[in-house]
This record gives sequence, structure tokens and C-alpha cells, in this order.
Amino acid sequence: MTVAVGVTGATGRMGREVLAAAGQRGDCEIAFAVSESADAGTTVEGYEVEPAGELEDLVADREPDAVVDFTVPEATAGYAAACGEAGVSFVTGTTGLGADEITALDRASDAIPVLHAPNFSRGVSVLVEVVREAVGSLPGYDVELAETHHNGKRDAPSGTAERLLETIEAEGDFSGRKHGREGDDPRVEGEIGVHALRAGAIAGEHEVLLADDHEELRLTHRAADRGVFAAGALDAAVWLADREPGRYEFADVLG
Amino acid sequence: MTVAVGVTGATGRMGREVLAAAGQRGDCEIAFAVSESADAGTTVEGYEVEPAGELEDLVADREPDAVVDFTVPEATAGYAAACGEAGVSFVTGTTGLGADEITALDRASDAIPVLHAPNFSRGVSVLVEVVREAVGSLPGYDVELAETHHNGKRDAPSGTAERLLETIEAEGDFSGRKHGREGDDPRVEGEIGVHALRAGAIAGEHEVLLADDHEELRLTHRAADRGVFAAGALDAAVWLADREPGRYEFADVLG
Amino acid sequence: MTVAVGVTGATGRMGREVLAAAGQRGDCEIAFAVSESADAGTTVEGYEVEPAGELEDLVADREPDAVVDFTVPEATAGYAAACGEAGVSFVTGTTGLGADEITALDRASDAIPVLHAPNFSRGVSVLVEVVREAVGSLPGYDVELAETHHNGKRDAPSGTAERLLETIEAEGDFSGRKHGREGDDPRVEGEIGVHALRAGAIAGEHEVLLADDHEELRLTHRAADRGVFAAGALDAAVWLADREPGRYEFADVLG
Amino acid sequence: MTVAVGVTGATGRMGREVLAAAGQRGDCEIAFAVSESADAGTTVEGYEVEPAGELEDLVADREPDAVVDFTVPEATAGYAAACGEAGVSFVTGTTGLGADEITALDRASDAIPVLHAPNFSRGVSVLVEVVREAVGSLPGYDVELAETHHNGKRDAPSGTAERLLETIEAEGDFSGRKHGREGDDPRVEGEIGVHALRAGAIAGEHEVLLADDHEELRLTHRAADRGVFAAGALDAAVWLADREPGRYEFADVLG
Repeated sequence: MTVAVGVTGATGRMGREVLAAAGQRGDCEIAFAVSESADAGTTVEGYEVEPAGELEDLVADREPDAVVDFTVPEATAGYAAACGEAGVSFVTGTTGLGADEITALDRASDAIPVLHAPNFSRGVSVLVEVVREAVGSLPGYDVELAETHHNGKRDAPSGTAERLLETIEAEGDFSGRKHGREGDDPRVEGEIGVHALRAGAIAGEHEVLLADDHEELRLTHRAADRGVFAAGALDAAVWLADREPGRYEFADVLG
Repeated sequence: MTVAVGVTGATGRMGREVLAAAGQRGDCEIAFAVSESADAGTTVEGYEVEPAGELEDLVADREPDAVVDFTVPEATAGYAAACGEAGVSFVTGTTGLGADEITALDRASDAIPVLHAPNFSRGVSVLVEVVREAVGSLPGYDVELAETHHNGKRDAPSGTAERLLETIEAEGDFSGRKHGREGDDPRVEGEIGVHALRAGAIAGEHEVLLADDHEELRLTHRAADRGVFAAGALDAAVWLADREPGRYEFADVLG
Repeated sequence: MTVAVGVTGATGRMGREVLAAAGQRGDCEIAFAVSESADAGTTVEGYEVEPAGELEDLVADREPDAVVDFTVPEATAGYAAACGEAGVSFVTGTTGLGADEITALDRASDAIPVLHAPNFSRGVSVLVEVVREAVGSLPGYDVELAETHHNGKRDAPSGTAERLLETIEAEGDFSGRKHGREGDDPRVEGEIGVHALRAGAIAGEHEVLLADDHEELRLTHRAADRGVFAAGALDAAVWLADREPGRYEFADVLG
Repeated sequence: MTVAVGVTGATGRMGREVLAAAGQRGDCEIAFAVSESADAGTTVEGYEVEPAGELEDLVADREPDAVVDFTVPEATAGYAAACGEAGVSFVTGTTGLGADEITALDRASDAIPVLHAPNFSRGVSVLVEVVREAVGSLPGYDVELAETHHNGKRDAPSGTAERLLETIEAEGDFSGRKHGREGDDPRVEGEIGVHALRAGAIAGEHEVLLADDHEELRLTHRAADRGVFAAGALDAAVWLADREPGRYEFADVLG
């Protein structure tokens, strides 16, 4: 069985990767590609890219099994609604969603399978698990998180950092988050330092540091390229094909 | 209750740390200190150090509750036997033990509690656990281990690296270990690369790298100083005071 | 010749290190030790510590060759003035000095040799030089700086980070510094990201990252312990003994 | 002016990158592509790949300005000779060359410009310079080098590591190189530890560690992808177009 996939944000960094990755696997095919910034004649990785405004019509005409979306929060909410109405599974890796956009995903998930993940890599899922274990086993250790991404990333901290922070906070008794320090600004006991570095084209690095007076533990993940995220998003689209409506996580795909 | 502790290797790096740490806690006191290289009049951290040949007499005369030992394999075997005969608990952090020395520890453990650990830090115990989880969750990923220690360390890889390697090998299907590479020497599938760096006075750093074609996970522990190991060994000596004869691990002390 | 050294902040982290280091070398001796928080009978490393208010009298009575100071900005300004009047060389590692305190150092340096350094390690001096060279050789690369110190450090960024930032800014065309990022907060072209991590007892780590779209260079220094700074400050005190009045830098001591 | 480039090893990791990079710049065009493993009909990045045995004929027929070569030592020697006879500039990034192959390059350079570099990145050139400065400024510090590359790399240490080692040895008084440590194998004073890690698809990471008893300096370069090397090799081919016969280094291209 081949899963037909519609791709949004097709001219963006991740959209391009999804189109490139789809061409190298046998279990999915591209039903269409759209982008807010597509002109007539735009092609990416050999696929014609159509204006994003056409999404509803395209979903109706081309009947994809799933849409894979890496765009911006407002766009994601609209695409989720369109997929919900058309009965098409929705996979999104858009980060920085607010309460309204999360509500839109929840509403769509009454009708279709919806999977939202800040990160589609197996290694990041393992990082989250080992961070959970380490924080739980080292109570009282200071915790700081640093993440490094390419210089064009808009939101800070990253979606993956947000997920790590929620995991850390669920495992210990922390007093708050501290985003950067400057001036006479000593560490408050129990706070989690959060640091967002932006440089070059770094695909994504996350490091959690735990330290007490005598030792340090550093747990670090690094994506070599964005291809790993594209492959994971397509894995999710294929996996969703057989699911009931509802909200899913990437950990479900990994099994 | 105060636990009376005899210290071997008292003029070595770790012996000195144990004597210094004992002076700063209320739950143990130093019964005696010995060293192969002690002359008449040698003192360390204010304690008189006696020749190691006297261990059997000292154990009989001073009646310690436990002996804490950081020496060399041959010495460790003899001290374990002496403690076994005298009914004194034995804690050892000596690394590089061979089959004969391990047999000596086993034999002594019929009569006394014996705890042998390559590393007495809570963070290293957590590192071992997260490495276990990561290797088990990422089958097929390449694994390499690098450890860095001070320039006077004799054995390679470190005892902690050895324990990490055993943990890794128990979790996956690996073909062997590779200690350094040189020349036309490509990686063999399934091998674990093992790298021992030696420089300066670094107390101890261990890093396990897992990588596939798209991502890397690095799990790293660093001891800020040797004090963490001395404190852990004394924790073990205090904890052993109430135990039955047998073999114990540092994880038992951590609970 | 033995240089007689007065030590301020004698009960602080660095003051203790200076007193410990002085006892292990033959080229200096302790003339006195003072601290704001000393009570009658306080001793550190075997030296009696006197109230800091007595500094002027002590400088007059004990006639030290130099004072070594690791305290807080307001205290440093007063001590520098007292040394200037008494004709005693002044070495200070206090960080976070404001314009008033720097003026106080300049004024004292009309009468005595004054050496102010954020960091008394040879390795940090080399780090500054290699950062200078790398930033000059890689124009247009994004630059981010991260520094990690113990959880009790008050000021951010560290004095050494400040010196690195000034070095970076002198070598390239940068638009400003950015201390932490949060929310919809993308990187502005030409800014230098500055990140202050605080955890455990880490003596001091500084890392400068340079990246373009295809590569990264990381230049990192790590102090294993604070002893290196104490030794460097005493080296400076000894070296200052023969100098003319004026302002000096630690690079001058290194030659 | 457009420089016409012949590409050898066109089906290899680097050959593919060179063909991909050439298509994205206006200052060069592909004259032909050859590979030992090409069959009739093989294409890479849209270019037809011909059997490597045809190189002499192709050089004569297509009259390229330069050949860019990433192959194996024996092949490189033959291609250099063919280019020398045809008067075509020769750029090679093949690593692991022996004395015979170096002689072949020297001989060809009587007739044509020849540029051999283990690494075509600006950042690596800067790394070599900062390592030179750091080793020269920190005499007596222990030096260890670790390099990490993808699991298919044959030779160890890497060509870039070799160049770093030669740079280090020229700056200090070192006793030898040590490739891995195992067993009772303590560090010999003055030796340089060399460690080759192989994992996943890592494009290339080089780290030089300098340490004494109190501090560590780490100088690290990481290539995000192999595209940086392909771009550098084409920069070299374009730059060589106007040169006299002779041997050149990539530092000459960087100016």
C-alpha cells in the first residue's frame, strides 16, 4: 500500500526535505505540494508547488491519505480544520503553537487522526526518556538546558526544548525557568536555566546539564541534517493511515 | 553510630582524598592508614601512615568496622583475605582486577560484606542506566566510547569504561571492541570503538556516542574532582556496617 | 626574595584558594588576611583572619609588598585607594567593576603598580588570543558565547566573558550583544549571543562558537579548579614587586 | 570566465558533492565525470559518468581547465600524470597518499599547477592556525587529538588530523604519537594521543585537547556536511586557472 501525502510549506526548509525524502521511499507518494510563497511555475524537488490558498480544493480533488505540515501556527490551525472536514490525516511539526492553535488540533482530532510533534527523530525521543530518568535519579542537582539551531529560527526555546522542559518539571521540584542571565543575576535555587543559541545552519542540538558540587552529567542530541525529521514525519503519515480519529504522539509511531 | 575505617593506599591520590573526606563528616572516623610507600613519620591529612605490611596486625589491634582500599590488584587480593579472616567489611575501588583477584574477593565475601566498584559516584550510576536505556532503544546505531583521565592513570580503559562496555554489550548485538584505529583500518559493523585519552589532571570523563546516518546522542559524565569518589566510598563503608556477608555493588548503597 | 602578600576576602572562595596556594610556594609569604565577615578567632588555612575595616592599619603595620584582592566592586575601590596611599602593589580579580571603581584603580595606579584581571590563567590568555585570530579570519560567521560557572556566581556574564566579548567586537563588525532569547525572538544579523549557565561547583568554562552554513568552530577553556587562578594571582603579585607605578594586565606577567 | 572542470571518483561521496555544488555556481561548469565503478548509463546529479579508464582521452577531447579528484592514492597518482601531460590543472583531496604518490604529484607540478589538500574548508585552515598558536603558547601541556568521521572512512587518522599532528609537532618538543591505549599502558611524557572515532554519517569533527594540572583548552572544528569541502575544491579549481605550474596549498586559495 502506498500512502498519498499532501505537503504544505513546500518551499520552506522542512517542506523541501519532505519532498526529497518522499522520492526515496516506496511506501508513500506525493499527492500535491502547496506553499504561501508559490508562484505559477514554482517547482521543488521536481514537484509543482501550488498556492496554499488552494488547500481545501486540493484536499477534495486529490484525495490524499494524509497532509504533512511544517509551516507557522496560524496556517497550521487552518490546515488542520480543512483536513478535519475532508477526513484526511494530519501530521504537523510546526512549533510555537498557542492555545488557539492547539484547540484547532483538538477539534480536528474528533474527525481525523492528528499527530503533532516538535521533533520527528527517534534519537530525540530517547533523549527525552533518558532526561526523565536522570532528573528523577538526581534530585537536588542543578539543571540547565541549552539548544542550538540555525540563525533563521524564529521561536525560542525550540519545540523540542519545550518538551524537554515539561519532562524535567514533571520529574522534580523546580521553581521556574530562567531564559538568559545578565547583570547582578544569581541563580535562584530550583530554577532551570534555558539558553537558545542561534548560529549558522545547525539543524538542531539539545543539551541538558545536571550538576552538583562534584559532578556533571550532560545528555546531548544532535541532528546531522533535517532529513531525519522529514523521514520521521513521513513514517508518521504512513503509520496514521490505519488509525482511529484522535490525538497521537511521535512516540506512538516508534512503538 | 560512628564507623571506624582503615584506609589502604593512604599516600596515593585516592587514599589522600578518603582521609580528607573522613575528617569532614560525623558518621565515620579513621582507625588507621597504611601505604606501601610509607616511611616512619609519614603523615597525610594529619594522620600517621604506617607500612602496609602491618595490615593484619592493625586490623587485629584497632578493630575497624571497615577497610577502604584504593591500591593495585595484587595488594587488594591480600587485603581482602586479611579482612575476611578478621571479620572486617571491605570496600575497594581498585581497578584492573584479574580473575585471581576477583576470586579472592568472592572467597572473602563468604565471611564479610565485600563491595567492589569501579566508581563511587551517583552520577556514574545514572550514566550507566541511561546508556543501558539508550542502547536498548536505538538498535543498529554505531556506538563509540571515549574516556579521559589524568596523565598518571596506568590502566586503559578505565574501570568505569569497562562497566559501561559490559552494559552496552548486554543490551545489543555487538561484534567486539576496538581500542584505537590506525592505518587502513575501517570500522567493522557492530564493533564498539573504545578510546582512552590521558591528559593533565582530569579527574574522569566518560562519553558514550550513539550515531546513525542522521543523528547523534552523546551521554557524558564528568567528575569535577576525586572528592566525589572518596565520599561515595565512605558512604559505602558506613552502609556496609549493618550488612550480611556477601558481594555488594555501589548501586545497592544508592538504593 | 620573598614577597609579602596581604589577602582580602580571605573567607571567600578565592581568598581561601590564595591562602592555600601561598603555603605551597617559596617566593611569597602571607603578611595578613582580612575579611568583611571575619569574627575574632576566624582562621583560614591556618592563618588568622582579621576584620576588613582594619586594612589601612594593617597595610601600615605589616608593610606587605602587595595586596591580592578577590572581593566585591565597592570593597575593591577602597582597598585600591588604601594601597595607593601606602605604596603597596595591588592585584585584583574582582569582577563586575563599574566606572567609579575603574576610576579608583586608575587613580591608585599613579602611585603604585595596579593589575586588574578577570582571570589569572595562562589558558584563558591563550583562549583570548585564538578567539581574536579566529574571529578575524572568519568574517561573516555567526558568533555565540556560552560560559558556565558555579551556582553561587552573582554577575553575568563573567569577567572573562566580558573580555572575550571586547576582543570579538574589536575584530569584526558586530551589531550588538544578545543576552538570552525567548519567544518570537529571531537572531539579528551581526549580533553576538551571550549565554550564562550556572550549575553545581563548576570552576569556569568559556566557549566561543563560530558558524556559517557549512561548518562550526568551537574554542573552549575549562578551569579544573580555582587553584589555577590563585596561583596566577600570586605570580602577578611577585611579578609586580619590581614594577613602576601604572596599570598592568595579566598578559604582561605571562610575558 | 567559466572554468571547465573534470571530476574523478564521480560516484563516490565527495565526487557526488562536487557535481552537486558545481550546478549551483556560475564560475565553473562540468566538462566530464568519470568513475572506476561507472557502467554505461550511470548518471550522477544529472551528469553522465564515464569509465575512469577513459581519463586520458577525455582530457584530450574535452579540454577541461582543471580536474578535481577525490579517489584513492593509486588512482590519484595516475590522474596527476595524465593531467601533467595534457597541461590541465589538478586539484586533489585524496587522503592517505604514500611517498610514491607524492612524488607523482611533484613531478606533475613541473608542468601544471597542482593543489593537494586534506581538507577544503576555511574553518579547518583556521583550526590549524589556532592549534599552532595554542601549542606554541602552552609548552609542557599534554596534547591529545580526537577525530570523528562516518563509519565508512577507511584511513585513520584522517588527512586533516595528519596535518594537525604535523603542525603540533613543529611547535613543540613531542616524543611520538600514540594511536589508542589498552591494558597497562600509561601515558609517556611528551606523547600525542591520537584517537579515531567512526560512527554514523558524521562529515568530520576534529578536536585538539591541551591540558595541564589545572586547566584544559579544547579547539574543535565540525563540518556540517560535505558540501563545504566540495565548494572549497571548486574554489581551488577556479583559483588555479591563472597560476604558474607548481605545488599549492588550500591556504593559498584563502589568501
